[in-house]
Amino acid sequence: MTRTIGDLGEFGLIGAITEGLVMPDTVPVGPGDDCAVIAPRGQLVVTTDAMIEDVHFRRAWSGPDDVGRKAVASAVADVEAMGARPLGLVISLSAPAETPADWVLGFTRGVLAECSLSGAALVGGDVTRGAHIGVAVTVFGDLEGRTPVLRSGARPGDTVGYTGRLGMAAAGLAVLGRGFRSPGAVVRAHRVPEPPYGQGVVAQQAGATSMIDCSDGLLADLGHVARASGVLIDVDSAALGVDEAQKTVAAAIGGGDPLTFILTGGDDHALLATFPAGESLPSGWTVIGRVLEHDPDAEAPVTVDGAVWPDAVGGWRHF
Amino acid sequence: MTRTIGDLGEFGLIGAITEGLVMPDTVPVGPGDDCAVIAPRGQLVVTTDAMIEDVHFRRAWSGPDDVGRKAVASAVADVEAMGARPLGLVISLSAPAETPADWVLGFTRGVLAECSLSGAALVGGDVTRGAHIGVAVTVFGDLEGRTPVLRSGARPGDTVGYTGRLGMAAAGLAVLGRGFRSPGAVVRAHRVPEPPYGQGVVAQQAGATSMIDCSDGLLADLGHVARASGVLIDVDSAALGVDEAQKTVAAAIGGGDPLTFILTGGDDHALLATFPAGESLPSGWTVIGRVLEHDPDAEAPVTVDGAVWPDAVGGWRHF
Repeated sequence: MTRTIGDLGEFGLIGAITEGLVMPDTVPVGPGDDCAVIAPRGQLVVTTDAMIEDVHFRRAWSGPDDVGRKAVASAVADVEAMGARPLGLVISLSAPAETPADWVLGFTRGVLAECSLSGAALVGGDVTRGAHIGVAVTVFGDLEGRTPVLRSGARPGDTVGYTGRLGMAAAGLAVLGRGFRSPGAVVRAHRVPEPPYGQGVVAQQAGATSMIDCSDGLLADLGHVARASGVLIDVDSAALGVDEAQKTVAAAIGGGDPLTFILTGGDDHALLATFPAGESLPSGWTVIGRVLEHDPDAEAPVTVDGAVWPDAVGGWRHF
Repeated sequence: MTRTIGDLGEFGLIGAITEGLVMPDTVPVGPGDDCAVIAPRGQLVVTTDAMIEDVHFRRAWSGPDDVGRKAVASAVADVEAMGARPLGLVISLSAPAETPADWVLGFTRGVLAECSLSGAALVGGDVTRGAHIGVAVTVFGDLEGRTPVLRSGARPGDTVGYTGRLGMAAAGLAVLGRGFRSPGAVVRAHRVPEPPYGQGVVAQQAGATSMIDCSDGLLADLGHVARASGVLIDVDSAALGVDEAQKTVAAAIGGGDPLTFILTGGDDHALLATFPAGESLPSGWTVIGRVLEHDPDAEAPVTVDGAVWPDAVGGWRHF
C-alpha cells in the first residue's frame, strides 16, 4: 500500500523535509522554532510566488522533483532581477491527505536541489491539508549594500539585453498540451526552468539601469519595464536566436512563427535588463534591442523591428 | 450580476489591493517591482502560515474581512513569539475565477486592518487561480539588535506566564460546528484572534528565557517548549481563568470541563513564555506554572496540577 502524507502526519512530514538541513552563516536559526532568524549584510529583497496543481503544473507532465525545482527557480528569479543574492526561502505546501508521501519527498528533493543551485537556504515552511496541491514560495535576497535594480530605471538610448532561455518552456507546454513528449529540450524547459543564477548581481555591478525576470513573456515583461520607466522599447528580432527545437514545434503544431514562443512565452525566467548606451554587456548577455523616448501616441510600449507585434498584449493572465 | 475576480483580472485585482498603500521608512520599495525592498535595523525573523478554505475557515462562518484579519494575525503572532517587531508581510492568494470580487476586496480590507494593528506593512503578494481559496502569509519581523527568544531556553525554576486569550476560539469553533452562533464572544474569537501585539518585545526585554505563540493548544505548545528545552512544565489549573462564555459552551455541548478548551484549544495566539525565577512578569502577563527538571521517566512533558491531563497529546493535527 502506498504511504500517504496522512500516514506520515504533519510533524512526521516536517521532520522528513527538514532532516539533515544545514544552515549557512547568514541563517543563525533555521527551521523548528516559531520563526527562522536571518542575518543579511545589507537591505533585503522579498517576493512570493505560488504554483497550483492543474493551473501551473500537472502531475502527469511533471515529476515531483520538477515541481519542487520550478517552484524555487521561478521565485528566486525575482530576487536575481533586483540584483540581489538569494539568501533563504520559506515554503507553504498544501496537499490532500491522500497524496503519496513519496510525491512530497520527491518535491522536497527538487526544492533542496534548486536551493543548492541558487544559493537560497530552506529556512522554514508550513504544511496543511487542501483539496489540491498548492505551493507558495517566499524568497529573500541580500543586496549586500548594493542598490536594487528596479523596473523603472530604463532611459532613452539604453541597450536592452538578456541572458538565459527565451520561449523554450512555452514550446514545451505547446507540445505537452497536444499529447507529445518531444522534443526533449523544450519539454525539459517546461518542467524545470534554468534561471541564470548569479547574473542578477553581475548585471547590477555592470551598471544595469533596469531589470526584470521574464515570466510573463518577453513583450509583456519589457512592457512592464517600458511603462514603469516611461519609455518605449524596440526589439530587434534578428538578435533573438530561434532554437531548432522551437522551429520543430512550430512546424509540428501548425506552421506558425516560432518567434512567437520567444516574444510571448514566459516561464523560462531569463533576465532582461537595460544598460547605459555604449557600455558593453557582461559576458553571457546578448543585445536584443534599445530604449526609445516616450511617445504618447505609441500603440504599444514595445515594438518588434519598429512595428507592433500582433500579439503584443499577450503574456500569461491568471483570470 | 456579481462581479468576479475573473472579471477584474489579475492586474486589476492587484491594482485594487495595492491602491493607496503607504510604505513605512523600513520599506524603501513596496509592491510593484519583482521584489519589495526592506531595510531592517537588525536581524530578521521570518515565518509562513497558510489558511485553506474548508480546512481553516468556512465562508459560511467567517466574513472575508475576518479571514483576512485571521490570516495576518496568526502569522504575525509567530513574529511576536521571537521577541521581534513585525515589519512587513507578503501574501499569496489563490481563488477560483468565479470568486466574487467583493469577497477578495473584503479579505484585503481585513488584511490591511490587521496589518495596521500589528505594525506589519503589506509589501507584496501573488494572486493565482485555484480550485479553492488558499492564503499563505509570510511575515518578517525586525529584532532591532535584540536576541531572539527561542523555544529552547526554558530552565528549571523558571516561571511560566501567558498573555492574550486562551481557549476562546476553540469554544467558538465548538458552537459553530453544532450550528449555533452564540455566545458572541467565542464566535468572534474563532473568527478573529487578537494576539497581544507588542508583548513579544516586552517579554524579550523583561528577560524571557523561552517563548512560543499558542496555536496548537496550551499543553501542546508548552510541550514544544519543554521538549526543545529539555525540561518538564507543570501548569497550575487554578491560575487559568475560565470565561463565563466557555462555561456556557461546555454546558451546552454536553457538560464537559470548560478547562479543556483552554488546555487543548489553539488558534487564539496568546503568547506563552518562561521567565527567570523570582523576577516579576510584565504588566498584562499571568503566572500559570513553573518549569521543572527533566525526568526521563515522565509520562508527558507537561502536567496539570502535577498530573498528566487525559488529552495531553491533543492539539491541532493537519493530517
